[in-house]
Amino acid sequence: MSLFLTFEGPDGSGKSTQIQLTAQFLANLGYDVLTTREPGGTPIGDQIRTVLHNVANTAMCAPAEVLLYSASRAQLVHEVILPHLKNGGAVVCDRYADSTFAYQGYGRGLEAEMLHLITQFATQGLKPDLTIYLDLDPAQGLKRKQHANSAGAGEWNRMDRLELDFHQRVRAGYLEMAQTEPERWLVVDATASIETVNQTIRRRLEQYLIAPQ
Amino acid sequence: MSLFLTFEGPDGSGKSTQIQLTAQFLANLGYDVLTTREPGGTPIGDQIRTVLHNVANTAMCAPAEVLLYSASRAQLVHEVILPHLKNGGAVVCDRYADSTFAYQGYGRGLEAEMLHLITQFATQGLKPDLTIYLDLDPAQGLKRKQHANSAGAGEWNRMDRLELDFHQRVRAGYLEMAQTEPERWLVVDATASIETVNQTIRRRLEQYLIAPQ
Repeated sequence: MSLFLTFEGPDGSGKSTQIQLTAQFLANLGYDVLTTREPGGTPIGDQIRTVLHNVANTAMCAPAEVLLYSASRAQLVHEVILPHLKNGGAVVCDRYADSTFAYQGYGRGLEAEMLHLITQFATQGLKPDLTIYLDLDPAQGLKRKQHANSAGAGEWNRMDRLELDFHQRVRAGYLEMAQTEPERWLVVDATASIETVNQTIRRRLEQYLIAPQ
Repeated sequence: MSLFLTFEGPDGSGKSTQIQLTAQFLANLGYDVLTTREPGGTPIGDQIRTVLHNVANTAMCAPAEVLLYSASRAQLVHEVILPHLKNGGAVVCDRYADSTFAYQGYGRGLEAEMLHLITQFATQGLKPDLTIYLDLDPAQGLKRKQHANSAGAGEWNRMDRLELDFHQRVRAGYLEMAQTEPERWLVVDATASIETVNQTIRRRLEQYLIAPQ
């Protein structure tokens, strides 16, 4: 049986570590495991990633951003994910369509229905079997930054305030999506130890593999 | 009054020449004229153009192609076309959304309704006031190539046959779109002289400027 597992969560939530541990866990169970990431994961996707991450591209409008992420996703699904799943393998992906719903939908306020239509087109309708959300309060990250900046740069508050609001909306979006579709999502407290987080993920995976929903 | 004019037609149809002549005609009428092209026309669009035109990217799937063209279009509309139109200027664009409907829709067979939804999202609903289609039978281009290859390379027929079918579908698509929406389209026989083609375009533009539909 093939398995398509995605990880969501902010930078610093321990996503990379947990992906590695989970991939190892699945390999030990006998799965042919492929780990990949978004945007990127293919030569074309990596070229798109370069456009998305180019710091000179500050003028990028929100629809262009969505379409570029979706183009990278379309290529990844077509070239990498679907062929591996068709061979009965397991794919573990660092971010997927839920990132678009969270960041561009809940975060930037783009219409959810349109994002779902574009995602349907880009992914050929492929949804993850399970999605792990590593949950972290954005204010915690902010506090650490505030502490480091305690000399008091006035500029800092305005910008980071905006950023905090954005990331709070993104987090609320993830939690709402998880609540709406609990059979697909697992929300894990990312402040717990690496081992505790990994145990929680493994337990859920074992449940799923015994009785896939 | 602002004016948004697009040109469609295959390579070799004389598009660039007619765009230049038409831009000059509009400038003589007192318009602030901006000519641009797709994909590209912005720094971000030019980066996307590089991905689309990279000859190494043979693995690109049709949905990724549509999404990349649409991302470039979204940025062009947002950054260049809409601001210029809001200032009352004229925009003359070498290819626009109709290229997606013709090449990816009629040509590659992607669903028209989905292409229209994605285009609506990318363009914020902006449609051209007038679209000039420079019409050329793809078989004419093929004949010239066939003549040049008369020594007879066997490989040539199979590939160019495919290409001809594709370009015939694209042309049929353009003609169908023009027939469905005649108030927006002008189909011009691209085999006529540069001056005849230009006169036809000027006459239609004058009609439009006297009584915009």
